Amino acid sequence: MNGPDFAKNELIPVVAQDATSGTVLMLAYMNAEAYRETLETGRVCYWSRSRRKLWRKGEESGNVQRLKQVFYDCDADTLLVKVEQVGGAACHEGYESCFFREVDPGSGEARVVGERVFDPADVYQR
Amino acid sequence: MNGPDFAKNELIPVVAQDATSGTVLMLAYMNAEAYRETLETGRVCYWSRSRRKLWRKGEESGNVQRLKQVFYDCDADTLLVKVEQVGGAACHEGYESCFFREVDPGSGEARVVGERVFDPADVYQR
Repeated sequence: MNGPDFAKNELIPVVAQDATSGTVLMLAYMNAEAYRETLETGRVCYWSRSRRKLWRKGEESGNVQRLKQVFYDCDADTLLVKVEQVGGAACHEGYESCFFREVDPGSGEARVVGERVFDPADVYQR
Repeated sequence: MNGPDFAKNELIPVVAQDATSGTVLMLAYMNAEAYRETLETGRVCYWSRSRRKLWRKGEESGNVQRLKQVFYDCDADTLLVKVEQVGGAACHEGYESCFFREVDPGSGEARVVGERVFDPADVYQR
């Protein structure tokens, strides 16, 4: 096996982790084309399931992800990319990580634990 | 929003990260029942897509995952659990992490970069 098995799954989930801090930034998806482009360019490219097209992460916000390392798992159906997150924030809501809400296991209630790096209104022109 | 939205997606991907080392251990899935059980027991329970039943991680190997923190993402369609990985290995192949193969972006070739913590033949009695 030499990489993720796109023959088995057209779309493969990708965990993006900050290469320096180890923070888990986000989860997105790649198809074979996005994977190939990512390896070739060193800039992470996903497949947007909602827009049904290649999603060059940061193409709008400028917060691109520079590929540092890429791993795949024992079942060849998940990827892990270690990245340099330009701008310090992966989330379109302005947080470093998309996982900025923590759940209290006792109550099931959530609270925001991340800090905003940018204001989405300033970054995404509507 | 107070947690992952199982009404939108019956199965939600879950990134498991070692709470101490920050290593990304694996990706698996939860349904609402697995999520509820995880919060209630403090032991991570997934939904096995291949066996189509609740998968109490470590039920065979003893390598359970003790829940430390749980987060969900901006779209409420992915979870991140920070865990204490008992036995030091999450992967059924005996590695700390399921992401034990690294791809060289230039050649596309993969090599094993993890070290085996246990021998699967000793752990899983056939």
